[in-house]
Amino acid sequence: MNGELMAAEMAEQPAVLARVTARAPADTEAVRAVVPRPLAGVVFLARGSSDNAAVFGRYLAELRAGRPAGLAAPSLYTRYHATVDWRGYLVVALSQSGATPEIISTCRAVRTGGAVVLGITNEPQSRLADAVDLLLCTDAGPERAVPATKTVTAQLAVLVTVTSALRSGAADAAADAAAGDGTLDGLPGAVAAVLGDPGPVHRLADRWRGLDRLVVAGRGLAYAAALETALKVKETTGILAEGISTADLLHGPIAAVYAGAPVLLVDGGGPADTDLDDLRALLASRRAQAASLSVPPGLPEAVHVIAAITRGQQLAYELARARDVNPDAPAHLSKVTATT
Amino acid sequence: MNGELMAAEMAEQPAVLARVTARAPADTEAVRAVVPRPLAGVVFLARGSSDNAAVFGRYLAELRAGRPAGLAAPSLYTRYHATVDWRGYLVVALSQSGATPEIISTCRAVRTGGAVVLGITNEPQSRLADAVDLLLCTDAGPERAVPATKTVTAQLAVLVTVTSALRSGAADAAADAAAGDGTLDGLPGAVAAVLGDPGPVHRLADRWRGLDRLVVAGRGLAYAAALETALKVKETTGILAEGISTADLLHGPIAAVYAGAPVLLVDGGGPADTDLDDLRALLASRRAQAASLSVPPGLPEAVHVIAAITRGQQLAYELARARDVNPDAPAHLSKVTATT
Repeated sequence: MNGELMAAEMAEQPAVLARVTARAPADTEAVRAVVPRPLAGVVFLARGSSDNAAVFGRYLAELRAGRPAGLAAPSLYTRYHATVDWRGYLVVALSQSGATPEIISTCRAVRTGGAVVLGITNEPQSRLADAVDLLLCTDAGPERAVPATKTVTAQLAVLVTVTSALRSGAADAAADAAAGDGTLDGLPGAVAAVLGDPGPVHRLADRWRGLDRLVVAGRGLAYAAALETALKVKETTGILAEGISTADLLHGPIAAVYAGAPVLLVDGGGPADTDLDDLRALLASRRAQAASLSVPPGLPEAVHVIAAITRGQQLAYELARARDVNPDAPAHLSKVTATT
Repeated sequence: MNGELMAAEMAEQPAVLARVTARAPADTEAVRAVVPRPLAGVVFLARGSSDNAAVFGRYLAELRAGRPAGLAAPSLYTRYHATVDWRGYLVVALSQSGATPEIISTCRAVRTGGAVVLGITNEPQSRLADAVDLLLCTDAGPERAVPATKTVTAQLAVLVTVTSALRSGAADAAADAAAGDGTLDGLPGAVAAVLGDPGPVHRLADRWRGLDRLVVAGRGLAYAAALETALKVKETTGILAEGISTADLLHGPIAAVYAGAPVLLVDGGGPADTDLDDLRALLASRRAQAASLSVPPGLPEAVHVIAAITRGQQLAYELARARDVNPDAPAHLSKVTATT
């Protein structure tokens, strides 16, 4: 059956996330033992399907560490051979396979420059192990469907743990108020609840089966969920889905380009949702097609956003099924996406 | 006539860039006087049409300063009210209008946190002046067409100057070899040469006038040109153009999504072009539609990339004309981009 791999791997997520949650106290201690002090900054290193997890980590790290965070540009090391002083930095490298050559060589370069490098991978025996100071495992089991699902949410959950370990006094209160205190306790249950309730997304997919384009909007931590949902919809269906910051859609000239495109709104259950309320009002006044990704209420923001990403996976899967595309093997998309 | 504003503003670029070039020595001294030493890192703060200039600055800054560079996430300050220690950081805020409220309030927040803040704007009398330690002006004159052209290339040229001022001994040699020594001398002439030779782009626009999607690929410094060209094509024509890293197109699962889409290749005349050669070979083997943006040879990489961005503006303009869309006013696009 088309999509059985993706469906099976999505269904494993509550168990995978329960393992990550159980290991969180030990992982937190291991991270604390290697973080440079004083900390100059935190940089996330990723490529392709791990890029959106890096965006998620970047927001949480700056909030929690109370020092600036950002994303690495690997080509500066693999192509330009830049000489950079990385002393005082923590670099968090994300690679599901642990085998991406440019991630490994960039880890080596920034470590030579003085960074402490932490790797997060689904393959603890991979070459990444030799290029980092500490390796944390997502322990999600083999992933065979091309659209990554369980390895993504597991990465995000490990990032909640890692960034919790970065707290410094000053940033604590604001970070906890904004994004939750780092506990993953509610996560496996929230994801199970999303997976157990596919009805609303099934109906949305049926309504949106004929789309050729889609805008996915979010802000703050939920911006990562918007980017990841857009990527998943693109990969599984060939619909030209684009993740955009709610702020750009509200205020940027780019808004005019997307006038008329249906918009999927991703809230985070956090302080950046005010922009989403403004966008919702604007879309309603224009009678634009819009829908939201719902998750159980009352979760800390970081957990809420991971649950929203599972909801986005579900939408990608259901849209693929509704369009008669096999979500397990996006290469088949070429027949759908052929253009002039 | 449709597009006369955009055409006139594009044509002003050699004169605007000559002014920026003439001011470069004074700007360099002014920046050197405020850069924190030791420097912990460099962060670029931008929104919307200045985002791609920030990407350009981020690559150059890390190469030249020899310290990590990145992009700010304004919502952490305007929505989450994060408490972050910015001591040791240089923050470069880009705002053409100098009036974007979230840029101004983020400048204030990071400055309160200890950052030195440098503003780059086209409006020296704007509110941005009060929120920064040093203001540099792009001096491009009023811009009336909605697609930003002369203010973008002027911003990029000022960024070449600013990042040249960040050099530290260690990074110098590698940075100069990779991206040029920071001189803008060849820039006004290169841009004039591009503007004076619209023929190839006119023919490409005629061939591609019916496109509904386009991938624009580049890597390293040229990644900024790919993103900016995609944005300009989107804004002026409504074609769903997406800027993608050449590395992701070569190796990522996303490549399958774009199989069949025409690809515009943007080289930088620098060390990251090897990936573009690989992509060109791959596209040829698949008989995919591909084209390149050409600029005069022999320029330093940073100058080459700015000239390529002018070539991208020219393509956006010619595509709009070929499609009978008014490039001056993208709001008219709604009639083109309406979807199901």
